[in-house]
Amino acid sequence: MDDFTYAVSTKILFGRNKIEQLNEEIEKYGDTVLLVYGGGSIKKHGIYETVMNLLAKSDIECVELPGVQPNPRIETVRTGIQLCKDHEIEVLLAVGGGSVIDCAKTIAAGVYYDGDPWNLFLVGDSAIRAALPVGTILTLAGTGSEMNGNAVIMNEATQQKFAIHHDLLRPKFSILDPTYTFTVPPEHTAAGIVDICSHILEQYFSPTKDSFVQDRLAEGLLKTCIHYGPVALREPTNYDARAQLMWTSSLALNGLLGYGKATDWATHAIEHAVSAAYDVTHGLGLAVLTPAWMEYVLSTQTMDRFLEYAQNVWGLSGSTDTVARQGIEKTKEFFNSLGMPSSLQKLGVSEQKLKDMATVAVTFGSIGKFQKLNKNDVLAILKNAY
Amino acid sequence: MDDFTYAVSTKILFGRNKIEQLNEEIEKYGDTVLLVYGGGSIKKHGIYETVMNLLAKSDIECVELPGVQPNPRIETVRTGIQLCKDHEIEVLLAVGGGSVIDCAKTIAAGVYYDGDPWNLFLVGDSAIRAALPVGTILTLAGTGSEMNGNAVIMNEATQQKFAIHHDLLRPKFSILDPTYTFTVPPEHTAAGIVDICSHILEQYFSPTKDSFVQDRLAEGLLKTCIHYGPVALREPTNYDARAQLMWTSSLALNGLLGYGKATDWATHAIEHAVSAAYDVTHGLGLAVLTPAWMEYVLSTQTMDRFLEYAQNVWGLSGSTDTVARQGIEKTKEFFNSLGMPSSLQKLGVSEQKLKDMATVAVTFGSIGKFQKLNKNDVLAILKNAY
Repeated sequence: MDDFTYAVSTKILFGRNKIEQLNEEIEKYGDTVLLVYGGGSIKKHGIYETVMNLLAKSDIECVELPGVQPNPRIETVRTGIQLCKDHEIEVLLAVGGGSVIDCAKTIAAGVYYDGDPWNLFLVGDSAIRAALPVGTILTLAGTGSEMNGNAVIMNEATQQKFAIHHDLLRPKFSILDPTYTFTVPPEHTAAGIVDICSHILEQYFSPTKDSFVQDRLAEGLLKTCIHYGPVALREPTNYDARAQLMWTSSLALNGLLGYGKATDWATHAIEHAVSAAYDVTHGLGLAVLTPAWMEYVLSTQTMDRFLEYAQNVWGLSGSTDTVARQGIEKTKEFFNSLGMPSSLQKLGVSEQKLKDMATVAVTFGSIGKFQKLNKNDVLAILKNAY
Repeated sequence: MDDFTYAVSTKILFGRNKIEQLNEEIEKYGDTVLLVYGGGSIKKHGIYETVMNLLAKSDIECVELPGVQPNPRIETVRTGIQLCKDHEIEVLLAVGGGSVIDCAKTIAAGVYYDGDPWNLFLVGDSAIRAALPVGTILTLAGTGSEMNGNAVIMNEATQQKFAIHHDLLRPKFSILDPTYTFTVPPEHTAAGIVDICSHILEQYFSPTKDSFVQDRLAEGLLKTCIHYGPVALREPTNYDARAQLMWTSSLALNGLLGYGKATDWATHAIEHAVSAAYDVTHGLGLAVLTPAWMEYVLSTQTMDRFLEYAQNVWGLSGSTDTVARQGIEKTKEFFNSLGMPSSLQKLGVSEQKLKDMATVAVTFGSIGKFQKLNKNDVLAILKNAY
């Protein structure tokens, strides 16, 4: 097991009507809030009104940043930073899914950063020295951003989508009310489930030996997705299914699975290159790329891990190459059963662009820890996924 | 799934030589330390010297409270509180296993409590309003006290051993260096493993339906104990076995398994009554009482949970009463294979005392959430374990 520091400081308020504790949590950090949200679904479903009524009760001043895109743009971050400076914002409140939260986190760090915020993504995590406190109200299970220090932002001009990571970016509190996900449409519910699975798999496939406990926990979270994913699609208002998926999404990427081992993240890097070029939904890209990555890296050297996966997650028995391949096939079938696309072509990607995307994916050098991938490897995976 | 608030604030520094970060962590809270430790094994193995040398480097003033008992006594807590007041202590540093940490936590709360600290255990958790910051250096895996807000203290005069729980008692930081457990003797290593298993089982056996993810995580932690327990006994200096058990002990009782569901804790209440009367090692008592409790509460109503346990933890197949009993038998065999005793008699308990212990176990009323137990139930379990 590798050394690690575990400091998962986010307070989670989980359950129905936990929003009632919103003001109490905000007031620990200030009384001037930047409310960050997306395309307006929070208005349609009444959450916006609830938040505004609550904030008014405690005379919390509220400035709004609406319109955060599903792949949040660096321009929106810049606008947010300016709003924070103009209005002396003390707390950011992100209401939405991962994109909204990621945008709020980047604003929070950008306020304290002297250059253009896109530089944070180019210079790297060490450029982050301070950040405004962020609170979140989650409306979509998937990214796990509500309990971690990661943020992914897109630069349309350069067709790049990069991530930053810092403990300073962990939300101070996150309100997880599973009923807020009752109205999430099937495609987004499914994309969220694939995103959770992908986060687990990126950490499960690791070069570190003796990560037994982390691996058993990962298998437990995967089984939860496999069990409740179809239930949530069939019965969108099934509280337990929504609750289990929501909590699993937070646990999948808060450090629990990755601390103590090296983790891969090649599939995410490739998907970011795809969605930077085509603005596809992250989960849809991952559904196509994950099995393609698995097929590419399966070899006699990596066989053991694939066999464990096939046996412990999918209940297959036997230790042959065929069983390992069946495990990958099961993954594909599961994603397809959720209504996910099976190829990049079906996502509208042009074959001519694959090379460019491979180049973007290795901007900072080779990717992947379970298996190192260079540009040619990435191109082969993209072709396999096409 | 039940509602919950997750705020596991303890920072874990995990790995070899993490003690080098001790001063940095202490200085966040003050520079006058009460060093709490036990019977001197930390002197024998050099940890005491390392700590003292480190503290001296930063001119951190250090007052000592040695001699904390394996079942820590309320008298020691009283002495500690007086030391804190006399020396204006700002931080408590517990170096040892769960007993030492529990003692330090109770001192931390007792400093701010107006009455005798034993009243905290009688009045209940709401009596805790403030606590000094506690840091820990763990030398024995088992209680999980290094990452939670629980403390168990014994009152010899009244033959009682009770627990308090409060988020204010969570250590601010805990240093987990698996090499510190290399010298733990086999009996204590085994007792620690049983303690971890018991913590997991107390939360696994629950009346809450739809705790799927919590249950899969619990099974993963149990499998880790079953896998690495024998390794740690056979090869005491096997880093990975010690590391996996150490981290599992923290995860088993930091909230991860219990948040979102009702948890049982009847076996712990009964064991506390036994060890209050006989000062037996907690893990040894649990090794005897856990299977006895399982046998007593197994019924057609509780069968499903026992079958899941037999299948998912022990890999048994089938859904009959026999399979459920085999799961219990496997538990017994596992504990015995670690060298644990198989009856209260072998622990030196007198049959005449069983009734008194049953009375103490239900001091605050009936116990257990998976199945409610009154005094007669407890007595039946004690007799079964005898």
